Amino acid sequence: MAYNFTAKEVYEAYDRIRDYVYKTPLEESLYLAKDGRRYFFKLECAQTVKSFKIRGALSKMTTLTEEEKQRGVATISSGNHGASVSYAARLLGIEKAVVIVPETTPKAKIDKIEFYGAKAMLMGRNYDEAHALGMEYIGKHGMTYIDAYYDDYKIYGGQGTIALEILEQNPEIDTIVVPIGGGGLITGIAAAAKSINPDIRIIGVQTEACPAMIKSYEDNVFYDEYPVTGDTICDSLVGGVGALSYEILKDYITDIIEVKESTIRKAVKHMIKEEKFIAEGGSCTTLAAVMDCPERVGGKNVALVISGGNIDGELMMEILNEK
Amino acid sequence: MAYNFTAKEVYEAYDRIRDYVYKTPLEESLYLAKDGRRYFFKLECAQTVKSFKIRGALSKMTTLTEEEKQRGVATISSGNHGASVSYAARLLGIEKAVVIVPETTPKAKIDKIEFYGAKAMLMGRNYDEAHALGMEYIGKHGMTYIDAYYDDYKIYGGQGTIALEILEQNPEIDTIVVPIGGGGLITGIAAAAKSINPDIRIIGVQTEACPAMIKSYEDNVFYDEYPVTGDTICDSLVGGVGALSYEILKDYITDIIEVKESTIRKAVKHMIKEEKFIAEGGSCTTLAAVMDCPERVGGKNVALVISGGNIDGELMMEILNEK
Repeated sequence: MAYNFTAKEVYEAYDRIRDYVYKTPLEESLYLAKDGRRYFFKLECAQTVKSFKIRGALSKMTTLTEEEKQRGVATISSGNHGASVSYAARLLGIEKAVVIVPETTPKAKIDKIEFYGAKAMLMGRNYDEAHALGMEYIGKHGMTYIDAYYDDYKIYGGQGTIALEILEQNPEIDTIVVPIGGGGLITGIAAAAKSINPDIRIIGVQTEACPAMIKSYEDNVFYDEYPVTGDTICDSLVGGVGALSYEILKDYITDIIEVKESTIRKAVKHMIKEEKFIAEGGSCTTLAAVMDCPERVGGKNVALVISGGNIDGELMMEILNEK
Repeated sequence: MAYNFTAKEVYEAYDRIRDYVYKTPLEESLYLAKDGRRYFFKLECAQTVKSFKIRGALSKMTTLTEEEKQRGVATISSGNHGASVSYAARLLGIEKAVVIVPETTPKAKIDKIEFYGAKAMLMGRNYDEAHALGMEYIGKHGMTYIDAYYDDYKIYGGQGTIALEILEQNPEIDTIVVPIGGGGLITGIAAAAKSINPDIRIIGVQTEACPAMIKSYEDNVFYDEYPVTGDTICDSLVGGVGALSYEILKDYITDIIEVKESTIRKAVKHMIKEEKFIAEGGSCTTLAAVMDCPERVGGKNVALVISGGNIDGELMMEILNEK
């Protein structure tokens, strides 16, 4: 498949969203430096709505025409993306904003979506049903669908703005480590970072519970769906990969590392107890890769993307109290 | 006492330091809104070195002449200020930087100071001895002393830059709540905020363990030293008040609230478990005031300054596991 996603999308996205997002800290770890390697956390857990997802949502929604804004926006997501679309709609003065979620969604998540201003609509018994019913609803009402990441260059472009900030904040960064779920985040980051420094190393990380991208490349098969094996604390990283990511990343990626759930839990604990930043499980896969195999991660000045900070309070306490 | 500290100091400080500090998030609490009141956290726990102190240190150190930089800088502090001076010296290329601490200082604090580049020097059995010996050392070596806050307009000016950010990020803020230790932070913030909006309400908060400013005004006596009563988790807020703060604040302050240590512990727990930000005890006095007496805090759009995020890991776990 040919594609025409380039860093230009990322630069244009940044022009549109920079006034709305925080330039999040790039802070050196006080504890990880070893063997001449230094590690820097890119703290998207301190981003608005506690997640990088706001970058993509805003990137897309700032391109809408007045007429599209009038007709409204909608998405299907009970997680960070849903909350981000809600927040972005308020910020941009889009009055009709709907976030469709399965009927089983916990009240806390619905409250959060509605806190930012959108209407949460419960449809279907699970995500697949919600998706089918939701797309029908969106089509019928002529709203603009804000995709979580799969098929939209504007979303990829927004996520990639993280790389522009990292390399401005520390031009010596030679390696960027990024969690992979569907692949939108790492694709945007890779395209932008390589345009600034073609030698930069881009390392992806996946949980052992759902190594969809790793298996896609191993098997040379594009897995748009992929099963979850065992328990995972990385809700944001499960599922298949995006078609565009699968194509584009081939040209950019240095390596993809699979990490154990047990290491991810230790990484969450380290982030909170030592580094004093609250990060969600999926985010801490980047730190887990460094804990497990620093040689394979490599680099001298390594940026670890900490993509979000939405972790369930009870899960956090359970992990903190683990030996 | 007459004084001539005005918002001009703050604006000038911001011109000098804005390229070095993070514009930290001003994030609305998802949980506190009630009775038509909204609350926004100004998250200096996400600032470099995890504390607002870097603003004051940089404000002062960016005014040094080349000759003064050559002779070097020094301070006496084992806490956030010491680490901030160390970091600022590295940032500004000041090679001679010394942070003097008592011999009893825990290794973790010394490691942190030296991590940022300064030399930590151990002097005296307690802070008073360290101060006496330290000032002698600094004088003998012709270094510039970087005061933590007591007597330096440049330091106050740096801390006040927080107010410029708050009112740019949300011009509807009508009340700013600030922890008071020596008083440098609230003095800088008050002067700057009042210059932008003369009607803005400035609320100080102190711990019951050391209500030095409250007692100073009650007794009409300037307490430059004040005892600590009972246990406190607000290390950064103990001791007497600054002479300049005592004079200046009279003209600016709306109210000063004393909060219980038990409420401060609950506030720390709420920040971490619900809001998902790690904040130190002294910082959470502002949230504690809202938890205890929202009517007295007042306001419609209230900014709570969360001044720092350096909390001991064991203490944090103890508080998180409290009922």
